[in-house]
Order: sequence, then structure tokens, then C-alpha cells
Amino acid sequence: MNNQKKLVDSVTSRDTDFAQWYTDLCLKAELMDYSDVKGFIVYRPYGYAIWEGIMQFLDKKLKDTGHQNVYMPLLIPESLFQKEKDHVEGFAPETAMVTTTGYENLTERLIIRPTSETLFCTHYQKIVNSYRDLPKLYNQWCSVVRWEKTTRPFLRGKEFLWQEGHTVHATEAEARKETLDILDIYASIGRELLAIPFVTGRKTEKEKFAGAMETYSIEALMHDGQALQSGTTHYFGQNFSIPFDIKFTNVKNQLEYAYQTSWGVSTRLIGAVIMVHGDDEGLVLPPYIAPIQIVIIPIQSQKESVKLATDQLFADLKKAGYRVSVDDTSKSPGWKFSEYEMKGVPVRIEIGPRDLERNEVTLVTRHDRNKQIVKTTDVLPMMSKLLSDMHETLYQRALDHVTQHTYEAKTYDEFKAYIKQGGYVAMSISGEEAEIQIKKDTTATARVIPFEQKLITDVCPVTHQKAVQTVWFARAY
Amino acid sequence: MNNQKKLVDSVTSRDTDFAQWYTDLCLKAELMDYSDVKGFIVYRPYGYAIWEGIMQFLDKKLKDTGHQNVYMPLLIPESLFQKEKDHVEGFAPETAMVTTTGYENLTERLIIRPTSETLFCTHYQKIVNSYRDLPKLYNQWCSVVRWEKTTRPFLRGKEFLWQEGHTVHATEAEARKETLDILDIYASIGRELLAIPFVTGRKTEKEKFAGAMETYSIEALMHDGQALQSGTTHYFGQNFSIPFDIKFTNVKNQLEYAYQTSWGVSTRLIGAVIMVHGDDEGLVLPPYIAPIQIVIIPIQSQKESVKLATDQLFADLKKAGYRVSVDDTSKSPGWKFSEYEMKGVPVRIEIGPRDLERNEVTLVTRHDRNKQIVKTTDVLPMMSKLLSDMHETLYQRALDHVTQHTYEAKTYDEFKAYIKQGGYVAMSISGEEAEIQIKKDTTATARVIPFEQKLITDVCPVTHQKAVQTVWFARAY
Repeated sequence: MNNQKKLVDSVTSRDTDFAQWYTDLCLKAELMDYSDVKGFIVYRPYGYAIWEGIMQFLDKKLKDTGHQNVYMPLLIPESLFQKEKDHVEGFAPETAMVTTTGYENLTERLIIRPTSETLFCTHYQKIVNSYRDLPKLYNQWCSVVRWEKTTRPFLRGKEFLWQEGHTVHATEAEARKETLDILDIYASIGRELLAIPFVTGRKTEKEKFAGAMETYSIEALMHDGQALQSGTTHYFGQNFSIPFDIKFTNVKNQLEYAYQTSWGVSTRLIGAVIMVHGDDEGLVLPPYIAPIQIVIIPIQSQKESVKLATDQLFADLKKAGYRVSVDDTSKSPGWKFSEYEMKGVPVRIEIGPRDLERNEVTLVTRHDRNKQIVKTTDVLPMMSKLLSDMHETLYQRALDHVTQHTYEAKTYDEFKAYIKQGGYVAMSISGEEAEIQIKKDTTATARVIPFEQKLITDVCPVTHQKAVQTVWFARAY
Repeated sequence: MNNQKKLVDSVTSRDTDFAQWYTDLCLKAELMDYSDVKGFIVYRPYGYAIWEGIMQFLDKKLKDTGHQNVYMPLLIPESLFQKEKDHVEGFAPETAMVTTTGYENLTERLIIRPTSETLFCTHYQKIVNSYRDLPKLYNQWCSVVRWEKTTRPFLRGKEFLWQEGHTVHATEAEARKETLDILDIYASIGRELLAIPFVTGRKTEKEKFAGAMETYSIEALMHDGQALQSGTTHYFGQNFSIPFDIKFTNVKNQLEYAYQTSWGVSTRLIGAVIMVHGDDEGLVLPPYIAPIQIVIIPIQSQKESVKLATDQLFADLKKAGYRVSVDDTSKSPGWKFSEYEMKGVPVRIEIGPRDLERNEVTLVTRHDRNKQIVKTTDVLPMMSKLLSDMHETLYQRALDHVTQHTYEAKTYDEFKAYIKQGGYVAMSISGEEAEIQIKKDTTATARVIPFEQKLITDVCPVTHQKAVQTVWFARAY
């Protein structure tokens, strides 16, 4: 293994330099590699497998709720892209453009999709005619390109992988419901798969998607106290259906513009998993997303008894549906322990000849590094509960972190002090003027307007005007 | 349904105008739609679901044989692309290039990947050091862009979806074995999933991949007698490892350049399914790839007995794992029959009140349009064998078509006559000179050099030189 030397180097401590710790983990756990084009990364097998786990989980939920997958073209004619005014203003600076090919210069520049609203709308214009054609609940899995100036693996790239859902509805109520239903499904990715407690809510006018009436978001709090916007859903109303002329005959036999939504989550979720759960020994992967849930490490694997017990346990666990692997390479046990800790594998089982004499193995759980001696025959029966307890523990630990780092500010000084500490700070503000001032003073941005509203103060501590809503702020990635 | 009018128009007969018949089916079965950029298509839900079926089948086979998925960047710096001479010559004319972004002109042009050998090689150079790191068996699912002048849905597009495998091995023997193992897996897609008997063999020097030592192919014969190259595997030897400097320490502790392969199948397979099995009523989808295997059409669905029987049968079939759907919309039964015939759904079950009085339903199989009355309680128990028989019948029918349209030519006149009729024509030739002459005279190209070799004539009928090998020719898409 060429990376042995790199791996045994200690990882930067996460409390010393969180940014460096993050980069170290991305590389040393072999999640990604850099490519020759800045901001474009190679998703290595271990990193891509995490994305595959997320895709599998979400794709099933989307199909179970009637959504269908499609694939739209990679390239968008510049003129088409410019049809919706706010949308083009939001994305134009970040577009990458194809202007020439091996044998001809193009007459019109083609934009690599930064998002595909314009393509979906063009298609919907052709296929939607009657309320009987609705709803259309389409989704696609693809990569998109946005020419970001500052990039970090998984968190912000010039290219990233995502899904983008685009739906068309016959009524405003139905489209609004879709926007919130998908937000619930997104939140379930955290609750059920990634062990991340997402905070959900509406975005402020300032932070909403280019072209949307309303944007909703799931936000996660990283170990360093910064927030990460982890997925968004948008209610468009008729903002796109009017310029794209998506009309249908409604039940009253009248022509009406359709109501639309769009929504997406991306490989950014991998970044969230790293920064919520990881520690100084490496990744800590929640058991339901871990590409390898259990690694078996035979000690003195040349011994027949060890080999037999290893094969048997591997076969039993695999048959039961666990993602299990055996490492019987010639590397030292100590090296292997560090390697699988670095990779955040939830359960490590060490099978050695002495333990085996007592029909026992050593089982180590990654999230708490707890070591226990268990009967060989107990491993399989205990596994389901072990993993489910681990998931709950990780979720609760992350939730405690959120709870301990969520504050209410009654004064602007309080607000500034809390923001400095890291975490979410709720404050009741008068509007966008306050939001702009806060960003200027503290770099914190409005994360969400929570669904449950209660004013903390009647007056906005920033503008001293009447407070109209409570907003959660944080510094964010 | 806005497409009602279009759908009831008769489809062009496939024997009148095969090309028009093909386009009609692509559109009327709602597999795809055109986009605003010529050569880029929209994969609609029904078309994309076929691709999802292929992905699921192949991805499992690849993972079961130790392959891992990764994702490489969309864009390749022009200088990197130019590292392997034959490779760049083969692809340069078809490249689409990004030259500018919303805020800067690029200093180097970036090519949208037409294939990713250069990206994989760059990564492998970094991570391969010792024979212990090998083999690396990577695959990615993505879209690629090739600026083709003439395009047709699924068969040839400026963008298409595919998988590309790229592997690195410590020995020539192992890499050669991989090239052939994958060819077997590709052939199994036809045998087990698409009911297509692929002909396999090696490509001639003239037809091999740009940069490969050897290319192998699976070829399918369309209804019109033209062949379709449906997947290829390439043995690279050290052609890429030398320019890309992929060296490793071998078991004898010597530095050696690695041995590589690459291989791919694409959404072209959808085109093969259409053109091998389809008929004048529309698509005929083999049962294991059909997105909907069984459609239940209740006649007079407002009647309680019909509704109950429909719900029960749907639930039973779904529980048993079949892809089943119910159409209880207000369209007429006759309309629905045509619609699902157009979409090639393998089994249609009509549930009407009169049949139900005798506990019977009507079952129609798409591939032979055979209608049978069966006991309601027999539907579930008979389904597995019904679908498997249908698969075998379709496979056999396609195989008969190949057998009936495969000829051996002893003279060039015979060859020309057979090629005119359509199908594969085997002829023993002297080499590339003959191949070039044949293409010029007949437009037929060498499809494969079959693995089992037997000379038909000792002298090449084209050049009158000594014949060295027997090659299968055909006109091809």
C-alpha cells in the first residue's frame, strides 16, 4: 500500500485546525483525490460508495412517492438559459461555456448545466396540456458545473454530483405541499441514514434560490460550530411557467399557467457526514451509510482455526445482509486497526487464536472505541441491535451538539458573542436591512426562518425597528 | 393525454421505412424527446427506466466480480488529452471544448470527456506503486460528449449515457483475461436481460479503439439486417501506462509498466432492444427489462366486483415482486390496449364483469398478441413461467433471425449479393486492403473476427492474395 506512510502520519487535530483536519480526512480515508482542473475532484471508491448509499436511500423514497427518473441534456443554449430573469442573474457569473468543437465554432454558446430548470421547463411546455397530465414528478441524478472561485472537496466544487427534482402541478396548494413533503424526505436522510439532526425552515428573501417564490432548507451544524446548508426545496409558483409558457386546461376547462417546484441534495452531504461525526482518529461513519459496516481482522490468519472462524463469521454476516469485509493482507494488525479507524468502519472484529480457544472474539465499536470480548456465536445475533444503538447514539450526540450550540439573542452584543462561539443564534429581526448589517459585522448569514415562530424581542436589536420574525443565524460553509 | 392523437395515428410500417418506424417508436412510446441542441435528447421516464434496468443488472455483475464505482471529472485539460497519440487522433475531431466562463476566459481549453482514459490514467499514476495495489478494477456511470455530425436517438448522439470500466493489472495475462471476462458479462446482458443473441469476436486493426492493442465487441443484428456494435472491451497493454508513467514494483521487486483495459456499454442498447424486437404495433419489450411487466386494465372499473378483483390481483402480483401497474383512467379500453402495445408491455390483463362471473380474466401476451382466458386464481402461479417462456421465445426468434441472415461468401459477387440482402457475411480475407475495398464497394464493414476460426477459401476473393482470417461483415449503424 503506497499510502501506508501517509496514513500513519498523525492527522491534524480537529480542534487545532478544523479545515486542515477536514482535508486530511478526505485524502487519508481515500474518499477523493484532486484532479488537474482546480475544483474538480476524483470520487474514489470509498467516497463514491457513500454517495451510492445516499442515492439508493433517496431514490427509493422518491419512487415510493410517485417520482420518476429522467435525464436531460448536459448543455443549455445561452438564449434558453436567459428566459427567466432572476434565474440567469443568479447563475450567469458561474457558467462554463462550450464555444467550439473539434471541427466547428458554435454559432451559439452552450452552457454546461449549473441546474436544469430551463431544460425541464422546455420539455414540460411540450408535454403538459391538461390537468389530466398533471402532476409531473420528475427527478434526475447527474453532475452540474458552477465556476466557483473558492472550492473545497465535497463542500463546494466547480463540479458536483446531485439529484434535481422538478415537478409541475395543477394547483398552488399541491405544489406547496410537494415543496414541504420533499423537505420532510430530505430531513429523513439525516434521521434514518446519516445520523444528522437537520434543522429545517424557510430561507429569507435574501437567501432564496434565483427564480423561486420560496426556498426551504435543511441545515446541519458541523463540529466547529459552522452551519452547512445540506439541501433545498423551492416553490416556484408560476415564475417559470409564465416565461416558458407551460399552460394547461384546468378542471373548469380554462387555460392556466402551471405551478412548479424544484429541489436538490448533493455530494455536499458527504462533507456533512465527515464534519458532524469525524474525530481525531479519522472518519466515524454512521452504520447505515457505511460502505463497510463490519471489518473482520484475523490475527495469525495462517492458523487453520483462525481461518475457519474468519470464513464462517464472514459468511454468516454477509448472508444476513451486512456489508462485511475481511482484511487478511500481510499488513500488521496495528496498522489495520488504524486504517479502519481512519475509514470510520463502525465495527471491527479481531479474531485471534487465543480468544478462539475460549470461542471468543474481540469486537471494537468505532464511535466510542469501546472494546468488548464476545462469544463467537453471539456476534451475529447481537449485530442488528449493536448497529441500531450506534446509529441512535451518533444521532443523539449530534443533536446534543446542536442543542448546546443554539442560542437566543436579546441584544446585538449577545448575538455577536454567541456567533463568535459558534452555533445557531436565533434573533428577532426587522427584515433584510438587519440581515445585511449582520453579515457585514459578523459574516453570519440567515440559515432558516423556523416553522414555529415566537418573537424573542419586540424590537430588532440591529435596526431598532419593529421585529417581524425570528431567524436562525450562523456562520456557514 | 395530449399524445392520444399522435398515438392513434398508425406507426410507419417497419418494412416500408425502417428508419421512420424507429423514430416513430422512440417518440410515440415516449422513450425520448428532442432538445434544443441537435444531437442531445431528453430521456423520458419510460426510456430512462430501461436504462435503469440495464444499469442495475450490469452494476450487480460488476460488483460481484470485484469492480468498484468511482466518478472522474467531466472536464479534461487539452494538454492531458493529448498524451496518448492514437487516442487523441481518434477523438480530437469530436471534442466539445469549454473556453470561457461567466467571469474569465480560460488559459487552457477544457474538453468535455468523450471517454475518460486520460483521467483514470492520471489518477492511477498517483495511487499505483506496488503489485500489492493491483488490480484496480474501477468503473463509472456517466454521460460523455462526442460531436457527431449525424445523430439518431439512442444510436448515435452528441451526448450519451454509458458506463466506462478502466482497470490496471500487474500482468499481461490478467489484463487479457479481464478484457474477455467483461466481454462475457456484456454478452450475458443479451442472453439474460435483453433477449438479444450477441455475436462476439475481435475487431480488425482498422476498427479497433483509438489507443488499444486489441478491441473486442458484442454485435447485434437488427430487424432490417444491419448490425449494431453494442459494446466493446479493449486490451491496452502498456499503450497508456508508458505515456502516463503508471509503474509498479512487481513481485521480483523490479519496476514495470502496468497493463490496462477499458470497456463500455451505453444507452445504444436501448436502440438495440427497439430494433431487434419491435413490430408494427410498437415496442416489444423482453420481460426482464420491461419497466412495466404487467398492466391490468379494468373494464367498467366503477363496478365493485371489478374494482375488488383489480386491487387484489395488483396487490398479489406486486407482492410477488413483479413490476405491475393498473390503468383505471377514463380512456377507452381500446385506446389503452393500443397504448400498452405501443409501449411493449409484455402482459396485459383485462378484468371485465362478465369474465369475473366465471372467475376469469383475459390475458394477452404482447410478443405474439395471443389472447387467453384464465382463472383469476391462476394468474399469479402462472406468471413466472409465462415471463420466462416469453424471454426464451424472444431470444430464439432473434437468434433465428441471425441464423437466417448469416452467410458464407466464397466469391466477391456472392458477398455483394448477400450484403445487399442484409445480415452478416463471413468471408476469408487477406487483410486491411480487402477490408478497405469492401467498404468502398458495399459500405459493409468488418464487424468481428470470430473466436472460432476456419478459412472458407484459401484465397481472398477481393485481393486474390492468400486469405489469412475469416471476418464477419455487415452494414452497420
